[in-house]
Amino acid sequence: MATDPVFEGAKVSARRRGRPVKSAALADDTRATIVTSAAAEFSRDGYDATSMRGIARAAGVDPALVRHYFSDKADLFAEAIAAPMRPDRMVKKALAGPREQIGVNLVRYMVETLDRPVASERVIRMLHTALGQEFAAKMLRQFIIREVLKRIAKELGEEDSELRASFAATQIVGMVVARYGIKIEPLASASPDEVVNRIGPVVQWHLMGNPLP
Amino acid sequence: MATDPVFEGAKVSARRRGRPVKSAALADDTRATIVTSAAAEFSRDGYDATSMRGIARAAGVDPALVRHYFSDKADLFAEAIAAPMRPDRMVKKALAGPREQIGVNLVRYMVETLDRPVASERVIRMLHTALGQEFAAKMLRQFIIREVLKRIAKELGEEDSELRASFAATQIVGMVVARYGIKIEPLASASPDEVVNRIGPVVQWHLMGNPLP
Repeated sequence: MATDPVFEGAKVSARRRGRPVKSAALADDTRATIVTSAAAEFSRDGYDATSMRGIARAAGVDPALVRHYFSDKADLFAEAIAAPMRPDRMVKKALAGPREQIGVNLVRYMVETLDRPVASERVIRMLHTALGQEFAAKMLRQFIIREVLKRIAKELGEEDSELRASFAATQIVGMVVARYGIKIEPLASASPDEVVNRIGPVVQWHLMGNPLP
Repeated sequence: MATDPVFEGAKVSARRRGRPVKSAALADDTRATIVTSAAAEFSRDGYDATSMRGIARAAGVDPALVRHYFSDKADLFAEAIAAPMRPDRMVKKALAGPREQIGVNLVRYMVETLDRPVASERVIRMLHTALGQEFAAKMLRQFIIREVLKRIAKELGEEDSELRASFAATQIVGMVVARYGIKIEPLASASPDEVVNRIGPVVQWHLMGNPLP
């Protein structure tokens, strides 16, 4: 897990290893300033209308410096909202495997990540905020549509792929809310395999219509 | 819809029709006292540990009076949390139809109810509260398990029916959160039929393993 860039925490600590103390502290300040500015820009303008360049301007730094710390907008967004996982990276990984395994792979990543309470608590807090504030819902919606659903749809390449991807999202979001938020039993205590076996094929059916077991 | 007891609002206004003004006001006071006491008892003790008798005691009224206004604990709970729909009644209705139609019937009821913004806003507010406060999550969890999942499981009568019902709940909860809360597109703008056709069969598969179209 330590080298998996899906986890922000792991990435940050890997970057810090072996760096001299003084310059590390300076770099941390700059990085923190960028993240703070990004959070403010995303909150004000939403995910779609915010750019790396605009964030650099707000932070008073060169755009090249923003790109030095963050590979893309999704990267910066995940950091700004303190996301414990990167759905867009999970999607990339899941799409790299066999087509008929996308659903199971996605669900396995999610369950393995969220079975750690520190991760699930942050995701539930994020969903709680999104259900209470329209601007938070809008940001999350734009991020999910652009970085997750449109990527899957592009890969599947069918006419109704975006619609299918949004229905696949319902099964994943519901698994997260019911297992980690409301903690409905016996689901909440079911083994990871049980969850993957019952949710993965549904996600796959939503995406590509593969028959269920 | 106006005569459908699934909707609290409809039931209340039907009860009020034709009642003399003065006694109606008195009755409304008593009823409101009972609801307020119920909300306090449910919040303190959770759904399972709260009884109609305990609520009567807290409200300072005879238990028979509580039963005069509310048919059962689920009825009083729905009123106490201002629920815009009654999942337990939906389940009863869905179970009354053909077995292989339970999923589609349940989802159709949900979508027809929640496509009215006044209803969906209340349900989303309820989920928002449950994701932010453990006692609210516990109440909702106990209510869903006792009044919804256990009823379905009993009707299906298989060994793993409770597990199946809790997985069916993930698909329904996710549809609600993604369509009415985060409003993920194109799902949020999809027609009711589209939603019923893509979510209903999944709920049915979770419950009974019926093959998907």
